[in-house]
Amino acid sequence: MNKRNILLKIQYDGTNYCGWQRQPEEVTVQGEIERALSILCAQEITINGCSRTDTGVHAFSQMASFIGEFAIPTENIKYALNNLVNDDIYISDVIEVDEEFHARFNCIGKKYRYEIINSVNRDPFYINRAYFVRKPLNFENMRKAAGSIVGKKDFASFQAAGSNPRETTVRTIYNLDLIEEDYPDGRKLVIEVAGDGFLYNMVRIIVGTLVDVGLGRIESSEVKDIIASCDRTKAGHTAPPQGLYLKEVYYE
Amino acid sequence: MNKRNILLKIQYDGTNYCGWQRQPEEVTVQGEIERALSILCAQEITINGCSRTDTGVHAFSQMASFIGEFAIPTENIKYALNNLVNDDIYISDVIEVDEEFHARFNCIGKKYRYEIINSVNRDPFYINRAYFVRKPLNFENMRKAAGSIVGKKDFASFQAAGSNPRETTVRTIYNLDLIEEDYPDGRKLVIEVAGDGFLYNMVRIIVGTLVDVGLGRIESSEVKDIIASCDRTKAGHTAPPQGLYLKEVYYE
Repeated sequence: MNKRNILLKIQYDGTNYCGWQRQPEEVTVQGEIERALSILCAQEITINGCSRTDTGVHAFSQMASFIGEFAIPTENIKYALNNLVNDDIYISDVIEVDEEFHARFNCIGKKYRYEIINSVNRDPFYINRAYFVRKPLNFENMRKAAGSIVGKKDFASFQAAGSNPRETTVRTIYNLDLIEEDYPDGRKLVIEVAGDGFLYNMVRIIVGTLVDVGLGRIESSEVKDIIASCDRTKAGHTAPPQGLYLKEVYYE
Repeated sequence: MNKRNILLKIQYDGTNYCGWQRQPEEVTVQGEIERALSILCAQEITINGCSRTDTGVHAFSQMASFIGEFAIPTENIKYALNNLVNDDIYISDVIEVDEEFHARFNCIGKKYRYEIINSVNRDPFYINRAYFVRKPLNFENMRKAAGSIVGKKDFASFQAAGSNPRETTVRTIYNLDLIEEDYPDGRKLVIEVAGDGFLYNMVRIIVGTLVDVGLGRIESSEVKDIIASCDRTKAGHTAPPQGLYLKEVYYE
């Protein structure tokens, strides 16, 4: 038994969870992993996740760290832990890290993926995994608008109303790519956005605004002014959570 | 209001259903669609599905027919029906057919798809949609074995034990293809099998037998003799339902 600082890399289908963050009466991803770790360590464990994903949001690569005492070597924790958590959560890596390391505080950026199905038909295999937009989207106009979002800016317009007004709303978006993927029954658009940090609901408001551009409700040239206004009411709608995936977390 | 013979093309994620066939106390795909149709037609409707898929089995293209009286034109039934059924079921086509047509009796063949993930890692996004095989599969040996299964044969070895012994167990397999698809974290094998008909659990026993070949438990050269034996106990295991998809139904 010795104290170790452990970093977990976690994948999950968020459909059956009330998001990442532990809540007393709800099933959450953090709560489920802590339950399993507390069994393994025979003591209560609290983990620090990098991103507080919302209800229904998925992750290919969530990162969380914690200090725990284990009777087993680090290389065996992965197998033990995956046997204890639900099948829709998978710990893909367990790494022993320096005692100073913290999954959230040391994070220098993140990448999210968002999937949109643009089709008049519903697809039963995507209902909890994509945003269905029935009317045709103009992808070219959406790409033009995306260009205005990249860079270091005050993104107050893209922050959920009611967020803490005292914190800075300046963030840097490194990349915002719109990729059309093969889809048999209509079109599929994947939006990937990387940045040094994201305000609450920021990715979903960026996507919702781009969808509004694609539908012709907002002109692609307006997006620059929407950002400059620092006014949430000028931006587009908040895209639904089920299309959103935490794809990568960056450390130095 | 006039009587029409209607053919439905149906997609579903079978995860949340006790299979296709209506059962008094269970949620089934047939039961859910009949519930919706009975509302639309204001009378009890019974539909005839082409394939009685098991619990957890999916469909890209199930076919079902029924005679009903509608107050709305056939082209509007699709929209009305899709608003009434659960989101994990989608009626992709509603076609008015000749009064003699029956989705099951007129069917001259079917194609199934089966998905296998060959990886030491679990994938939360495939847990209800594929068969996870952790040990490495020899795809080449599986392909060799598949060659022995194609053709018109007595497939009694590939029928679930306890099936009706009086019915013929001769079937014709037209194609049995093993296709490797891109998969980021290991290998993915898709097995597609088309035939004039399938015995109970036949596709899952074919897949289980091929997996046993891939694992070296059965030699690829033995499969011919396993079929000739007409003995279920000689064949491989029954692959789990969640990897199975009804892909196509053939009519003349």
